[in-house]
Amino acid sequence: MEKNLNLNQHISQKFNEDLERLRTDVLNMGGLVQNQLSDAIHSLVEKDSVLAESVLKNEDTVDHKEIAIDDICAKILARRQPTASDLRLVLAVSKMLPDLERIGDESAKIAKFAIELREHSDMKGYIEVRHIGFLVHRMLQRALDAFARFDVELAVKVVGEDKEVDTEYTTAVRELMTYMMEDSRSITRVMKVLWVLRSLERVGDHARNIAEHLLFLVKGKDVRHISYQEMKEKILD
Amino acid sequence: MEKNLNLNQHISQKFNEDLERLRTDVLNMGGLVQNQLSDAIHSLVEKDSVLAESVLKNEDTVDHKEIAIDDICAKILARRQPTASDLRLVLAVSKMLPDLERIGDESAKIAKFAIELREHSDMKGYIEVRHIGFLVHRMLQRALDAFARFDVELAVKVVGEDKEVDTEYTTAVRELMTYMMEDSRSITRVMKVLWVLRSLERVGDHARNIAEHLLFLVKGKDVRHISYQEMKEKILD
Repeated sequence: MEKNLNLNQHISQKFNEDLERLRTDVLNMGGLVQNQLSDAIHSLVEKDSVLAESVLKNEDTVDHKEIAIDDICAKILARRQPTASDLRLVLAVSKMLPDLERIGDESAKIAKFAIELREHSDMKGYIEVRHIGFLVHRMLQRALDAFARFDVELAVKVVGEDKEVDTEYTTAVRELMTYMMEDSRSITRVMKVLWVLRSLERVGDHARNIAEHLLFLVKGKDVRHISYQEMKEKILD
Repeated sequence: MEKNLNLNQHISQKFNEDLERLRTDVLNMGGLVQNQLSDAIHSLVEKDSVLAESVLKNEDTVDHKEIAIDDICAKILARRQPTASDLRLVLAVSKMLPDLERIGDESAKIAKFAIELREHSDMKGYIEVRHIGFLVHRMLQRALDAFARFDVELAVKVVGEDKEVDTEYTTAVRELMTYMMEDSRSITRVMKVLWVLRSLERVGDHARNIAEHLLFLVKGKDVRHISYQEMKEKILD
């Protein structure tokens, strides 16, 4: 853990507790979203509609958590008027929330397609869903771990992994489009798999965003919209 | 304008100026993003690659503005420690920024497809692009107007319009998929039009988000993740 984050050095014990609680809340929400994502992917490739239904049912819980934690952030800002790394913690959390919520959103979209696709025996594209699903789930896991431990190097790794996901995604889309052209009866089904892949690719973007917010929190440097190489130089110097 | 926003009653003249400047900066960024969106749509339907290139070139400016304004928000929070409606203004702005940036992002994606599609004589789907493009551009325009004037009713209207966009989008996708099934040689091209439509649908989501952030700012109430009917009751009582 970076030493310049003085979470445990506040005069007010209550303030410490507030910030610790905030971290725990976000990690809990992160855990829930992770489950939503893996359940959604699993429900699709295993044709498990009961699991897909449970993902859809849990979406409300994710949404409520976003609003509740966002409200805690606003209250801390108003009452505690944090500065320096405390302020960055609250801001980073409030920026992570929409990313987590959108991963929940994409998971729900995937679960809907899982239900629509459950009767189809054609499994074309499922290897790609499983593979890219594995990659983005791991990115999310690592982004949350990086946040839990303020682990800069792990966060940098996550940002780099997004490129790999984009490459895999582009290859998968190209392959599935060729498949559709050869068998136009497959179009309706394969289009749904393409939307699923698109959702997974978005999940990768959001996991990357979470990692970038953590880098801002720990390093006080904004690393959005620069190349991976530039970012590494800026962060790991 | 709502009377409970006391932007002009600060003891510190400098603080007033900071907040006013923040509003102006966001509206400028909003104007830039609006241009990016309309240029992107125009470049596609008019097969104007020069215009598409200019959209791609301007993307950096949007990204830089996001980071610069976000930095101003953090500085205001650290130095001025705003409370009540001032705090909500800063928080609302910092939440709007990623939405504006992503609209810029989607515009750039559309511009890339405009360049790829410029040689095709087949215009299937362009009526839908133009129509849905018009709807989401108007949503964005209204969301920004609502923010400029703190106009609650207009913001509520924008949230409602997102439903219309979703319906139009679903209809357009269904129609284009039928077209692909009838002529599988069109798949590669029509898929690109489908991604463009998807981008436009996302722009509608982001414009809706901006309107919701404004409602939170003016009313102090979080209206995300509830139905349009519930929201109207919560806001317009």
